Amino acid sequence: MRVKQTLEEIYTPIQRELGQIDDAILGILATDNPLSKQVIEYFFGVKGKTLRPALCLFGAGFAEDPEVTGNALPVAAALEIFHSATLIHDDIVDGSRLRRNRLTVNAKWGAQAAVLMGDYLHDRAMTAVFETKNENLFSLLLKTACDVCDGEILEFSEKENLSLTEAQYFRIIRKKTAALFSACVEAGALVAGLGSDDRFALRQYGTDFGTAFQIVDDCLDFMGERDAFGKNPGSDCDAEVLTLPLIRALSLASSNEQEEIRRTFQSGGKDKFDYLKKLISGSGAIEYAMDRARDFSKRAVSHLAFLKDVPVRHSLEALSDFATERVK
Amino acid sequence: MRVKQTLEEIYTPIQRELGQIDDAILGILATDNPLSKQVIEYFFGVKGKTLRPALCLFGAGFAEDPEVTGNALPVAAALEIFHSATLIHDDIVDGSRLRRNRLTVNAKWGAQAAVLMGDYLHDRAMTAVFETKNENLFSLLLKTACDVCDGEILEFSEKENLSLTEAQYFRIIRKKTAALFSACVEAGALVAGLGSDDRFALRQYGTDFGTAFQIVDDCLDFMGERDAFGKNPGSDCDAEVLTLPLIRALSLASSNEQEEIRRTFQSGGKDKFDYLKKLISGSGAIEYAMDRARDFSKRAVSHLAFLKDVPVRHSLEALSDFATERVK
Repeated sequence: MRVKQTLEEIYTPIQRELGQIDDAILGILATDNPLSKQVIEYFFGVKGKTLRPALCLFGAGFAEDPEVTGNALPVAAALEIFHSATLIHDDIVDGSRLRRNRLTVNAKWGAQAAVLMGDYLHDRAMTAVFETKNENLFSLLLKTACDVCDGEILEFSEKENLSLTEAQYFRIIRKKTAALFSACVEAGALVAGLGSDDRFALRQYGTDFGTAFQIVDDCLDFMGERDAFGKNPGSDCDAEVLTLPLIRALSLASSNEQEEIRRTFQSGGKDKFDYLKKLISGSGAIEYAMDRARDFSKRAVSHLAFLKDVPVRHSLEALSDFATERVK
Repeated sequence: MRVKQTLEEIYTPIQRELGQIDDAILGILATDNPLSKQVIEYFFGVKGKTLRPALCLFGAGFAEDPEVTGNALPVAAALEIFHSATLIHDDIVDGSRLRRNRLTVNAKWGAQAAVLMGDYLHDRAMTAVFETKNENLFSLLLKTACDVCDGEILEFSEKENLSLTEAQYFRIIRKKTAALFSACVEAGALVAGLGSDDRFALRQYGTDFGTAFQIVDDCLDFMGERDAFGKNPGSDCDAEVLTLPLIRALSLASSNEQEEIRRTFQSGGKDKFDYLKKLISGSGAIEYAMDRARDFSKRAVSHLAFLKDVPVRHSLEALSDFATERVK
């Protein structure tokens, strides 16, 4: 059993590069457009977990030459920008008002500005990666962009579908979340020039890590505390998105109970979330979902066994534990 | 003076390729995602003017080998998809309910689906161009995407600004509209492998043509008939976007009149559009704007003088006249 580490401890091998990530992000997004400038400063003024840049830098950290990690910095920054673009658009799609304990771009400037700013960030991120002139890297980002978007459209079209299966849920989160985590760590590997076996192992790590991460996110949406989580709990429920805890609770319910859940879910009443939270707490569905998350987290670590034993490998192992133990 | 031609006549030299454009578009957008499929079939079920693919094919038509025009087909299709993505997002930004005489994606499926579908089309278009492995071409598209978006953000942030100058207006439309027209014809030139002088001339043509086109669009928004225009007139006015006719009318008004215009514009009352339409009709502002459009249209044609005398050159000349004479 590994000793539990904080995110800061986990990030030690890449702390120098991570310390430059904000400057790299703002450099890529430099603009003389006043509204863009304002939104960019606001959005990046509060730090997220910077997991995606970190994964990219970890991937690059497997290179023989330690200086290579620095080369991955523009890519790591672009990946955070790309992710931010999807967040800004997601917050329109889900009608979310709070992220990282602040108003979303959508809530502060309106859906119109959020549509355009998401587009702008997306294209700037693409440009930054294209400018590296690494064709495989750019191709990976483009494919990932399509996958993420496809996953989001799938999730959107399955809203309110109370018959959603676990298999469908996993298909959605693999595309909408895990695909990007996987691309981040593989992008680092591509910058480092790793061989295809190592790249494959890291890509698999990213997919399983990302799946674990999303399951935990979905549990926190039921069980998290607003201040720690930084978002309003119950947002999936408000947006009528079914996630693993509810899918599990539904599968355990009697047909009478299922009917009641269906009615409550569709009612859109104010106490819908409290009702579902209670139902889920009582059914063991959170424990079930967290067990699935831990399975994916373990499997993520298992892929690393084939990689050489360097500090970033230990970080990736610890990060995988972190994913299932976090409260935000 | 050239004989006025219909769009169909103008398109004669590229009619074979243009006849395949729908299949090319649907090929690029093939998906097993049911919602995406539905939106794609709906949106591309009604043909627009396909000006952007036509410009790309015309650009390619300057090649020595006539078969080259066919090579530009995937690029032409991708450019129409790219443009469609911006339309779908624009209709969210402007709250438009009608396009090509049908409900917008926004009006039919909601802003959430429209955000995601715009993203998806954008990324698929990018992918299709990237797959041509023509680096200059892809770089052009990426730069254009950033410019178009930047222009739209500028337009958005200047909403309600009754002090907007003509210079600011031209800067906005050059980015949000003319940049893409210019890129379309240059993309064709890149596929054809034209030299940098020819490419430069075609790029300039596209910029001036696109500027003329947008000015006419802005006049039609005041003066067009809904059935011919295919959009609801007054949509710029509803969205509080200032365009050349209003900027001109404002500059001619006395300070008392300006105050009244300001009050009416900000009131958001139902008769705002009728009031502004009457004001603009009486002031000669439409004639002024149309004169500006014709200036740009003529300048567009002047750039073509340096290119060899082939059928597509005559089409581009005729298209430039068409831009200022259209009613939709």
